[in-house]
Amino acid sequence: MKKIYTIILLSVASVAFSQKPLDKVEPAFWWKGMKNPELQILVYGKDIAKNEIELSGGVQIKDIQKVENPNYVFVTVNTNEINVPKFKINIKNGKKNIGYYTYELKQREPNSANRESYTSKDVMYLIMPDRFANGDEKNDSSPNLTEKANRTLPNGRHGGDLRGIINNLDYIQNLGATSVWLTPVNEDNEKVYSYHGYAQTDLYKIDERYGTNEEYKELSQKLNKRNMKLVMDYVTNHWGVSHWMIKDLPTKDWIHLFSDEEKGFKRSNYKTTTQFDTNASEVDKRVALDGWFDTTMPDINQKNPLVLKYLTQNAIWWIEYAELGGFRVDTYPYNDKEAMARWAKAIIDEYPKFNIVGETWLNSAAYISAWQKNSKTGEAANYNSNLPSVMDFMLYGDMSKALKEKEGWDSGMNRIYNSLASDFLYPDINNVMVFFENHDTERWNEIFNDDPKAYKLGLTLISTVRGIPQIYYGSEIAMRGDKNKGGDADIRRDFPGGWKSDKVNAFNPSSQTSEQKEFYQFTQKLLNWRKGKEVIHTGKTKNFVPQNNVFVYFRYNEKESVMVVLNNNDQEQKLDLKHFAESLNGFSKGKEVISEKEISLQNGLIIPAKSSMIIELQK
Amino acid sequence: MKKIYTIILLSVASVAFSQKPLDKVEPAFWWKGMKNPELQILVYGKDIAKNEIELSGGVQIKDIQKVENPNYVFVTVNTNEINVPKFKINIKNGKKNIGYYTYELKQREPNSANRESYTSKDVMYLIMPDRFANGDEKNDSSPNLTEKANRTLPNGRHGGDLRGIINNLDYIQNLGATSVWLTPVNEDNEKVYSYHGYAQTDLYKIDERYGTNEEYKELSQKLNKRNMKLVMDYVTNHWGVSHWMIKDLPTKDWIHLFSDEEKGFKRSNYKTTTQFDTNASEVDKRVALDGWFDTTMPDINQKNPLVLKYLTQNAIWWIEYAELGGFRVDTYPYNDKEAMARWAKAIIDEYPKFNIVGETWLNSAAYISAWQKNSKTGEAANYNSNLPSVMDFMLYGDMSKALKEKEGWDSGMNRIYNSLASDFLYPDINNVMVFFENHDTERWNEIFNDDPKAYKLGLTLISTVRGIPQIYYGSEIAMRGDKNKGGDADIRRDFPGGWKSDKVNAFNPSSQTSEQKEFYQFTQKLLNWRKGKEVIHTGKTKNFVPQNNVFVYFRYNEKESVMVVLNNNDQEQKLDLKHFAESLNGFSKGKEVISEKEISLQNGLIIPAKSSMIIELQK
Repeated sequence: MKKIYTIILLSVASVAFSQKPLDKVEPAFWWKGMKNPELQILVYGKDIAKNEIELSGGVQIKDIQKVENPNYVFVTVNTNEINVPKFKINIKNGKKNIGYYTYELKQREPNSANRESYTSKDVMYLIMPDRFANGDEKNDSSPNLTEKANRTLPNGRHGGDLRGIINNLDYIQNLGATSVWLTPVNEDNEKVYSYHGYAQTDLYKIDERYGTNEEYKELSQKLNKRNMKLVMDYVTNHWGVSHWMIKDLPTKDWIHLFSDEEKGFKRSNYKTTTQFDTNASEVDKRVALDGWFDTTMPDINQKNPLVLKYLTQNAIWWIEYAELGGFRVDTYPYNDKEAMARWAKAIIDEYPKFNIVGETWLNSAAYISAWQKNSKTGEAANYNSNLPSVMDFMLYGDMSKALKEKEGWDSGMNRIYNSLASDFLYPDINNVMVFFENHDTERWNEIFNDDPKAYKLGLTLISTVRGIPQIYYGSEIAMRGDKNKGGDADIRRDFPGGWKSDKVNAFNPSSQTSEQKEFYQFTQKLLNWRKGKEVIHTGKTKNFVPQNNVFVYFRYNEKESVMVVLNNNDQEQKLDLKHFAESLNGFSKGKEVISEKEISLQNGLIIPAKSSMIIELQK
Repeated sequence: MKKIYTIILLSVASVAFSQKPLDKVEPAFWWKGMKNPELQILVYGKDIAKNEIELSGGVQIKDIQKVENPNYVFVTVNTNEINVPKFKINIKNGKKNIGYYTYELKQREPNSANRESYTSKDVMYLIMPDRFANGDEKNDSSPNLTEKANRTLPNGRHGGDLRGIINNLDYIQNLGATSVWLTPVNEDNEKVYSYHGYAQTDLYKIDERYGTNEEYKELSQKLNKRNMKLVMDYVTNHWGVSHWMIKDLPTKDWIHLFSDEEKGFKRSNYKTTTQFDTNASEVDKRVALDGWFDTTMPDINQKNPLVLKYLTQNAIWWIEYAELGGFRVDTYPYNDKEAMARWAKAIIDEYPKFNIVGETWLNSAAYISAWQKNSKTGEAANYNSNLPSVMDFMLYGDMSKALKEKEGWDSGMNRIYNSLASDFLYPDINNVMVFFENHDTERWNEIFNDDPKAYKLGLTLISTVRGIPQIYYGSEIAMRGDKNKGGDADIRRDFPGGWKSDKVNAFNPSSQTSEQKEFYQFTQKLLNWRKGKEVIHTGKTKNFVPQNNVFVYFRYNEKESVMVVLNNNDQEQKLDLKHFAESLNGFSKGKEVISEKEISLQNGLIIPAKSSMIIELQK
């Protein structure tokens, strides 16, 4: 433990010194001037609870909690009352000082509390860091971490890292993305299959194979300079089985343990509808929420106030330290919902503009919207999540089905129209994430056999409907991957050009294949156009019931109007524009965004097979 | 018109006398002591608006409305201020009295305002009167009505009538039904295809081929004596194209007329999601709500206050006159929703316990629940329907799919479980109608090829889940009908035994075929058991996530508990009862309702293939 501890100190701050029995102090430092002045410091070391804790500089302990495991003490201070930048946490055995830690309260960055976060103005680019670009080959493996790099293993560590992302910020920005969501980059020291990062083993430390805390902050700052945002993938539901606290539990109820045959482990039944279903049985609800997401992922008990405080402070610590622009939170409906409402509130109380999107993987708008702050559907279940943003998994599920279907009452473009007809359930429909794939789903280009027409239709839809479009690395260059055949690894292939040995470098537009170019250029044009379009970001929507498998909708505000046409047929279609008179009134022509062609609105509109048009209307 | 008018007078009251230009007065009479004392009387006759209207006996006219069509006058009086049982409506041309109508204000039945209505205590039996039983062959055709009886035509009039229903009340009651919903029985004088009754041509008169207003009231009273209820199928959305008012419209906006190619008629797009979809286009919404349900069904404009008043008074008139026990309202989401909220409120204001169920044919709980009074989903769309009850078309749609499926995340019994997991959206889940078929859907026994196992599973579910079970005439004797092949007529076949010439009389249990007996006896046993089971009517529910395609739920209250097991497999299953400990705690055994066998709860429970068990738990 000592060795790891030293590394942490080196990586986050060099201000402390300690000796046994002091192994860890978390958070390692904090800030003056937070809205919530209370700070709970976890102090960890062999039998530390059998000693006395004393703070130097007249700093008062407001509360001290000892738990079942004597290796932990939780010390609460009021930072408003502390007028020194540093103070010592002394461990005393009787009168003997047997260890200390120098605790620092840093100054906050100006305007930190009022930081901007991602909104519907943004497009989010989702990266699996191990699979994107290897910018620093020296950190591919670490002597401190078990799993070593091996690019030949589909489920192995491939060497992608933060430096690789930093090196390719031009690519991401030029593409038109304005925020970057990385799947978790905290330490995941599981023996194998650790590259995904969801079995975290240290919540305060970037995995050495991705880089350092400083590099993570560097990435964030470099994004901020470009007016882009770094979005952390936060995991409240589970930690890795090799997490140091899991190996030496502070309290038995820090995680959920099942006592029968499973010897602690029980797999979740994944039935998170039990969260709002007032008729759900206790056993089903317990297995859903307390069951483990996977064998290596002990389920964290957010109901324990110490756990909740730990998760809350850790989240705030990362926002403040790394100057983050938002969270995506994993497996949101698997958590204790009351605890999560307090967690989200604590964060928003500190950073009122901060955005948090929950992974609300449910198949109906009623259930998804119930997770959004102030929703009536949540209220129907006596719940208010305080969670600003949710993921539109209903539209996700409907999109790929729809594009393969002929017109029908519930199929083809009607399927998408029907899905959007539930928008009234969302209290903040602009703050909903829209996507047609992510790192857990089949890749869109696999479903559609790399058909550029399907890609363009899909991207047009998510880039022009309400919400925050999220795209997944590589699809913009026609990447494929078959989850059904190759498992998760196959939908998380390495980005071509991210490794020195790669034959094709798709990061460089001039060296892209012609297929990659077609996908890339369309994406680039559409997303860069979207950047300045307030009418898309926050405009109203008018949907027209699809006719003949053609879906037409308008985004509009007081200043401008955009007409979007999606033809899902294998034949071209001619639209009678009179049908759209209420939205075309006052406009005589338009300009199609991708082709830049002028469009007359005097006659019918011809729309080619399986294609979209985005028309900026003009007087 | 004179001839028809005379018939009306004969059938509803013999108190009036009139001469030209007075053709109609509606309502023909009213009652003293209604909560809303205001009464609007429609007076109709050639150029009647060119004359003066005067009331006798000092009765004051509070308001008089003349409209575009001079053949109509709408006269408002305050019944609280009228102290005579009868008064004359005099039509005067200058000083000359050119016609009169004797208007009667009757005494209300005691406790009329506080009448009981159907609730989850009831089972509703849905009858298509033309197809149930011909109790009076003399009225099969009428000289006054165009379409004559012809039982050889699938879409023709077959002669079933109110007397046929009255004659078979023992059958219905013995079966276990406690309320009877008849599809519309008001006059439908369309030339052909009139038997369904949804194109009504007189809203104050029972179709002569079904009987008289008096017989309708007789049916209701005879049901009430049996502690059963008559439920009227009310149609606010459309009238028949041959309705006398449609042929001589009071105002152009009495109905919705489309002015382009369609020359008045335009078919609805049936997209009633536009009601709550805040992004719906005006044109789609207009076509959905104002478009005609069918060519013979002009779409009524409830926004017109005269129309709304007419529909409201007509509804109240039937409740009061025929001593009704509830409404089912056709095509609810096709109406103007604000007007309907006022319509429902006006009725509930008069009869606080009166139940009204809307035909809310939508496929998601969010949309269906939004139509129920005080729902949060309605509130999300700034709407409160005031409608007490809705139909669970989501469960309906899921049931037949589920029973044909193997276990899967979203299939088999999980499909039903998932459907019920949205119950939290309903503000009054007990007041939801549950069914697996009705007169507009494929027949259950057709879908399942008259498999008694499927019938029993379906009936068990709708009879033991929350809500008001609705069954459709004939399924209890294995009736089939294939809508896909034979159209609506085929799912509305004649009940065997309803006609003198029928070879089999299934109304008489002793003359039922062995197949009919199996279906009938199961239905009878289950529904009669349900009658006394408060735990089913209003008990709480606990659902267990299905395992191996077996769904288990409990209904319970402080006094009793019932365990329901549905095995959807083609093989018998053994349940480990420990899984249900939270609901079985305190019980050692049970009695299965249908078999009456005692069930031990000490060991596992064996449930045969494709079957259900309803177990009353015992200490």
